[in-house]
Amino acid sequence: MSADSVCAFEWRYGSPEMRAIVSRRGIIERMIRVEVALLEALAEAGLAPREAAERLREAASRVHPEEVYERERETGHEVIALVEALAEKAGGEAARWIHYGATSNDIVDTAWALVLRDALRLLLGKLSRLVQRLSQLARETRDVVMIGRTHGQHALPITLGFKLANYVYELARSRERICAAASRAVRAKIGGAVGTMAAWGEAGPRVREAAARRLGLEPHVITTQVAPRDGFAEVAAALAILASQLDRLATEVRELARPEIMEVWEDRAGTLGSSAMPHKANPVTAERISGLARIARSLSTAFLENIVLWHERDLSNSGSERVAIPHLLLTLDQMLEDTLALLGRLRYSPERMRRNLELSHGAVMAEALMGLLIRELGMSRPEAYRLAKKLSEEAASTGRPLHELAASHPALAGRVPPERLREILDPLRYTGSAGWLVEQALGYAERVLRAPCPPLEEG
Amino acid sequence: MSADSVCAFEWRYGSPEMRAIVSRRGIIERMIRVEVALLEALAEAGLAPREAAERLREAASRVHPEEVYERERETGHEVIALVEALAEKAGGEAARWIHYGATSNDIVDTAWALVLRDALRLLLGKLSRLVQRLSQLARETRDVVMIGRTHGQHALPITLGFKLANYVYELARSRERICAAASRAVRAKIGGAVGTMAAWGEAGPRVREAAARRLGLEPHVITTQVAPRDGFAEVAAALAILASQLDRLATEVRELARPEIMEVWEDRAGTLGSSAMPHKANPVTAERISGLARIARSLSTAFLENIVLWHERDLSNSGSERVAIPHLLLTLDQMLEDTLALLGRLRYSPERMRRNLELSHGAVMAEALMGLLIRELGMSRPEAYRLAKKLSEEAASTGRPLHELAASHPALAGRVPPERLREILDPLRYTGSAGWLVEQALGYAERVLRAPCPPLEEG
Amino acid sequence: MSADSVCAFEWRYGSPEMRAIVSRRGIIERMIRVEVALLEALAEAGLAPREAAERLREAASRVHPEEVYERERETGHEVIALVEALAEKAGGEAARWIHYGATSNDIVDTAWALVLRDALRLLLGKLSRLVQRLSQLARETRDVVMIGRTHGQHALPITLGFKLANYVYELARSRERICAAASRAVRAKIGGAVGTMAAWGEAGPRVREAAARRLGLEPHVITTQVAPRDGFAEVAAALAILASQLDRLATEVRELARPEIMEVWEDRAGTLGSSAMPHKANPVTAERISGLARIARSLSTAFLENIVLWHERDLSNSGSERVAIPHLLLTLDQMLEDTLALLGRLRYSPERMRRNLELSHGAVMAEALMGLLIRELGMSRPEAYRLAKKLSEEAASTGRPLHELAASHPALAGRVPPERLREILDPLRYTGSAGWLVEQALGYAERVLRAPCPPLEEG
Amino acid sequence: MSADSVCAFEWRYGSPEMRAIVSRRGIIERMIRVEVALLEALAEAGLAPREAAERLREAASRVHPEEVYERERETGHEVIALVEALAEKAGGEAARWIHYGATSNDIVDTAWALVLRDALRLLLGKLSRLVQRLSQLARETRDVVMIGRTHGQHALPITLGFKLANYVYELARSRERICAAASRAVRAKIGGAVGTMAAWGEAGPRVREAAARRLGLEPHVITTQVAPRDGFAEVAAALAILASQLDRLATEVRELARPEIMEVWEDRAGTLGSSAMPHKANPVTAERISGLARIARSLSTAFLENIVLWHERDLSNSGSERVAIPHLLLTLDQMLEDTLALLGRLRYSPERMRRNLELSHGAVMAEALMGLLIRELGMSRPEAYRLAKKLSEEAASTGRPLHELAASHPALAGRVPPERLREILDPLRYTGSAGWLVEQALGYAERVLRAPCPPLEEG
Repeated sequence: MSADSVCAFEWRYGSPEMRAIVSRRGIIERMIRVEVALLEALAEAGLAPREAAERLREAASRVHPEEVYERERETGHEVIALVEALAEKAGGEAARWIHYGATSNDIVDTAWALVLRDALRLLLGKLSRLVQRLSQLARETRDVVMIGRTHGQHALPITLGFKLANYVYELARSRERICAAASRAVRAKIGGAVGTMAAWGEAGPRVREAAARRLGLEPHVITTQVAPRDGFAEVAAALAILASQLDRLATEVRELARPEIMEVWEDRAGTLGSSAMPHKANPVTAERISGLARIARSLSTAFLENIVLWHERDLSNSGSERVAIPHLLLTLDQMLEDTLALLGRLRYSPERMRRNLELSHGAVMAEALMGLLIRELGMSRPEAYRLAKKLSEEAASTGRPLHELAASHPALAGRVPPERLREILDPLRYTGSAGWLVEQALGYAERVLRAPCPPLEEG
Repeated sequence: MSADSVCAFEWRYGSPEMRAIVSRRGIIERMIRVEVALLEALAEAGLAPREAAERLREAASRVHPEEVYERERETGHEVIALVEALAEKAGGEAARWIHYGATSNDIVDTAWALVLRDALRLLLGKLSRLVQRLSQLARETRDVVMIGRTHGQHALPITLGFKLANYVYELARSRERICAAASRAVRAKIGGAVGTMAAWGEAGPRVREAAARRLGLEPHVITTQVAPRDGFAEVAAALAILASQLDRLATEVRELARPEIMEVWEDRAGTLGSSAMPHKANPVTAERISGLARIARSLSTAFLENIVLWHERDLSNSGSERVAIPHLLLTLDQMLEDTLALLGRLRYSPERMRRNLELSHGAVMAEALMGLLIRELGMSRPEAYRLAKKLSEEAASTGRPLHELAASHPALAGRVPPERLREILDPLRYTGSAGWLVEQALGYAERVLRAPCPPLEEG
Repeated sequence: MSADSVCAFEWRYGSPEMRAIVSRRGIIERMIRVEVALLEALAEAGLAPREAAERLREAASRVHPEEVYERERETGHEVIALVEALAEKAGGEAARWIHYGATSNDIVDTAWALVLRDALRLLLGKLSRLVQRLSQLARETRDVVMIGRTHGQHALPITLGFKLANYVYELARSRERICAAASRAVRAKIGGAVGTMAAWGEAGPRVREAAARRLGLEPHVITTQVAPRDGFAEVAAALAILASQLDRLATEVRELARPEIMEVWEDRAGTLGSSAMPHKANPVTAERISGLARIARSLSTAFLENIVLWHERDLSNSGSERVAIPHLLLTLDQMLEDTLALLGRLRYSPERMRRNLELSHGAVMAEALMGLLIRELGMSRPEAYRLAKKLSEEAASTGRPLHELAASHPALAGRVPPERLREILDPLRYTGSAGWLVEQALGYAERVLRAPCPPLEEG
Repeated sequence: MSADSVCAFEWRYGSPEMRAIVSRRGIIERMIRVEVALLEALAEAGLAPREAAERLREAASRVHPEEVYERERETGHEVIALVEALAEKAGGEAARWIHYGATSNDIVDTAWALVLRDALRLLLGKLSRLVQRLSQLARETRDVVMIGRTHGQHALPITLGFKLANYVYELARSRERICAAASRAVRAKIGGAVGTMAAWGEAGPRVREAAARRLGLEPHVITTQVAPRDGFAEVAAALAILASQLDRLATEVRELARPEIMEVWEDRAGTLGSSAMPHKANPVTAERISGLARIARSLSTAFLENIVLWHERDLSNSGSERVAIPHLLLTLDQMLEDTLALLGRLRYSPERMRRNLELSHGAVMAEALMGLLIRELGMSRPEAYRLAKKLSEEAASTGRPLHELAASHPALAGRVPPERLREILDPLRYTGSAGWLVEQALGYAERVLRAPCPPLEEG
């Protein structure tokens, strides 16, 4: 983390907790745990002396990841560095039996599973907090009416709570999705050089079961030398989807914070602004979210190619995962942190919402008018469509309220009382089932958040 | 499907069933079903006369998708074309109430849900057949010993059944994954222009429930103008993952069919070969699978960007989905068809497997030797590693069998009987728990295949 | 192009000219031309009788692509279908010598080169028209002042012409880039089954040169069985970049057309609007451009994987190119057509620009104030920054013009005359070298457009 | 670079030289150079006192990037940290005039241009060495005959030199492509907050010209607040293409190193092998190249999305480029280093090539036989095709040499002397113009390597 650093995740992006998980130290610690669990499993299966396992467990606590890391930097080979360091410290029988019958990827892939378990749990915790805050805000603003926008244009009224409840729903789905992905990705790979567990003779199934159990993991049902890479790709896709959802929320804020709109914004009082333009309060947190989403989307594609390994595996996944897994997890970590910060600084102006709502002088209520014409005046759809369009365009261009124009039009004058028209064409009353839908979405999210995610429970 | 056609899926790739689903006809038919269900729901909710719904249902059977398609080609606007065509045929009250309070995407997105339901069911059916055939083949070849390969190099013995059982496991995971994705993507979107269902007053929830029920779909809990696009992205990712798994299987065949290896190949007797090289029997089916996997991977990324819609939606998802959804489904359809065909023509040679297994004169058994040295002769890991490496390299370079070299080496001579060494170092006996793992994988896949996938059950 | 069609490019997207180029007919026609050129080259090199070449050329005009297409649909093998059809029609010596020593990909890849030449020329023609119209519009609006926006926030004044001139520059760069890509991609591949031209004995170089010359193409310097795929990937990347630039322009229009901004918009008078919201004039052309850009970006990635062919080639590029090349070209074709149409309907309002410019009451002029404080009042940067920020925030929040606030501030009062402050802080005068830069950009684009692109000149 | 590091590029991948360029230190140093050049330009244009520029230049040498880095880590804002640090050290007039009229991205984007210039020059240097070594090897092995492979199957003979010369050609094209991309990407962005250079009054063009000149860069013709992002995307695409070419070469080696083939391999004597399988010599360098290519391909797509910035820019490109630019450059750097190392250890066996060539007993010579039948015995293509196919299949299945089978077949017996058949069907003589093509490719590459790349010449 000196100025020599080449990677923005060394300090700029990512939380210390996530860095601790995906750092070399974090990975080496988890590899050590796997070696220990494996030797204990060998002992349990009667293949190695119990004492060897005990000595290794004890020695493991004296092996500093730094030592392993230094060896690894010299030789470039992570598992050999690890095994040698452990063997030296443990000595004797432990040195003889450590890693017995295992292949590097029993250690590496199972350590990845532990990394993913901890990292995804961290992300889901942040996601839960985010969904909760959004839910709270949605409930608070359930009746704050604003214009709904489609195509960037004014469509029909909604409420801010309704807008936010959509994000609540979408993000809750991400929780489901990530947990489903974890059930296929967070699994031990214990099977030896080609997956047959041949070195353990008939005790293979028992070794696998015991090692996985000690780590609190389900094992893969069958593997080659490595765990199947579809699980990693699924996690990566789920994270890229979450990233895109956060991008959508960030884009929402960036748009609503335009000075011409100013309905919702990020309050950045007290922060440093632009170096050339002191007057600006830029939505830089939201913009960073959008920017990092591109990293998440792009990295996720590397995992798809990794699925296509040759035969019982080739090594090509290794280099790309070494880069892509930590960087992808850190990207999402920063994005969730940023979104939480953004929500903490989020401000909204019901007054600006009201003003913008009136911008079209009621033209946005054309649908309501059309409904009335069909429902109560017996018009056909095309007729109703044409008349509603004509009157709403007139309202928008002349500035006369739509309800007035409607009241004086021959088709309606004398048939629908002006006060009823005013009521029917009042945007503030035209939010339909928005409130009910907010409750549906929040209830749904609560259930999703309460549901346990077994593959991510600590072992 | 004339020579004017620009798209390889019009005849070259894709099955007639899938084409029927994703063709304009298939989509229009489903949009018609949605319009009918919606008007029935409006009637059920007391918003429209029952008779209008009945007339529409009756008229719908007389509207040919071709007519709608012709209108659409003229105007470019699909839902307006549809509504006009239906209104004309149905007339009267039906014309007045059709599409009442709806927005185009109530129809379009719910029709996409119906398309996905039918298309994914078709794909899962083919995937099930594929898993079953692979399972059968895996059981049949459970004990056919061959060399396992890592890095393209000889590693340790496996069996062909073990190799295939890994694919069985991986593909069964795809079935789980696609079904999980369907639970979030195959859902009705019924909510009007901005999702508030405002045009239906207080009856909104009832309309939504009734329309979805009549189509056999779960509704989305809340939506904007459109269904959230994370569901589509998840389906696309699941399909890209499946495509990559098929690519892996195809690559396996392409590699094993090399003339120097010739363990497994695609029997293309009777087909046309290369125009310049009559002697060749190229694995073109497998190669096509690999090629189309690239289309699947690349198309899947477009869906991620579609998540980031503005506010209550912008239209940018529309054009890209119109292209990407049908093409992605057709791509997978062709890939599954190709893989089924490939399996039907798959041949293998136990004799070539045996020959290749002996290529290294037992050097592949170094692991077994190392185990023996550690286990029975009390060597440390590094010692055992060095000796096993030395002897196996000697075997590979001189052609003398490893067990002979071992038997005459001072460290073993007189300590381990030659016949025991021959047995321990016999590759044919060194497949560990391969058989057990095959059964595990096949049992797992059977359970996955038997499990229902409710979102894809016909409504 | 019936309702059975599965592909949106069969009628909805893409121009008839582009469809003619990339349709099966278009491709088959070009393959025929290659077969003819090849036989003529064989004759020229003395390998085949001249009469055979003459007969083939004559017969070729009588072979309808439809016949070839029908054969191909039956057998699935395009080049064999072609050769047989030609041989039948030509008969005699021609039937004997056609395709002599060639491999399918001599025909396929060289036909792709012809397709690319014609398709890229078509695209560059449209791009030139687009740059010219944008240039014209930029010149016309060179002095129409509007607010420049960064982060979606008001930054400093620009002119509409200046904004557009940036697009002119960027799009002109695309022309350079596509032409550079064409120089590596639009090349004949004539080399036989593995590229050694062995079947033509010593005459290989002469055959290649003559065939390429007759088609007006440069040959690749060396090839395997196929042309190297980096060229295709480069073209695809250049098109994806162009697509993203058009996306940027479309996004600009979509944003500026928001009702709260309304500075620039697409005039869609007379077109059908939303089915639920008759009042809306949605920027659907611009949105479609943004949507199709995602297709272009996603398809471009398939070409990268195609580079990694095995040895002297494997077939995996074939299926993916069959899909990706026509679809990518059609995507860009539609996007350019849409952008041209968008420009034709583009309207702008200097009055709204003026109004928006004043929205911050001069706060956007903080930079100018800061410059003055540094330049003329000897302040340090941080001091000047703080004062400018304070006053501009006051202007934005109170609505009092910045120049008034500045004039009455102790640091300036009495030191800079109020009228000078008004002048210096007048946004309309603060467009710097915008005009000069517009001329620079337009001049640059003119030179780029005038420069020939030799690889795309017709043969 | 401690065990806390999360990024594999901090020590595992990438050369020290490249790390020095893209580290924070490297970037900050370049930003300092831009600030100095800018103030000198302001002085040259008469906007700032010469003495201020001199003091800044002098002070700049005393500002350690570490200090700036520490400030930046505290505040998160890189340019403000930089300007404050410089202002403090320089004091007086320099502190007043530094960064005058500039915006952060004048510094950031121009520093990126300097980073790209140095980084691409470094990459092109390595690429040149690679092309030269490949050329040398290609010349050396110009006549080493081996089987050419298509579809993984034996096709026709080539030479190893011919195979390698294809890579020479392809990689030389990458040099052209990267240089062309640099001409659009390595450019100064000097234009102030929205690109109009307003703060410099009429002197804008002069400031820009002078600042760019002092840095040895061409300026962009026009910009918004930032340089147009198409240039970055083009560089990224060119690097992803190069990565895929290296992947192709690595895949070639991985395939040819299979024990069943063993024609070409990476000599890894003395390196640590697999932890479970001491006998293996895995092509891990080549595999890493293939793995990192996936990172390059995936990162390149992030740059496409960055093109679509809003208006005069939004910040979303910033976070993604901070990650993607250094990581992409380091990825290619490692890949080129790896490929150079791979070439240094590359071994080949003419003897194994000969043996594999004979594997099909001459069946690969079917094309030559077919040519003979058409050319000298007057057969039609289909007849010749059928007979050649029949005989070559017989050769492959019976093991009798094709020339013997041909000699005794009624169609040839007595018409073509056996010794002539043996000669014509001798694979060693059937390499066509391979030698000539090697020379063509090498000559081409030499010219490309000799050509200067002006945008990358040091300023």
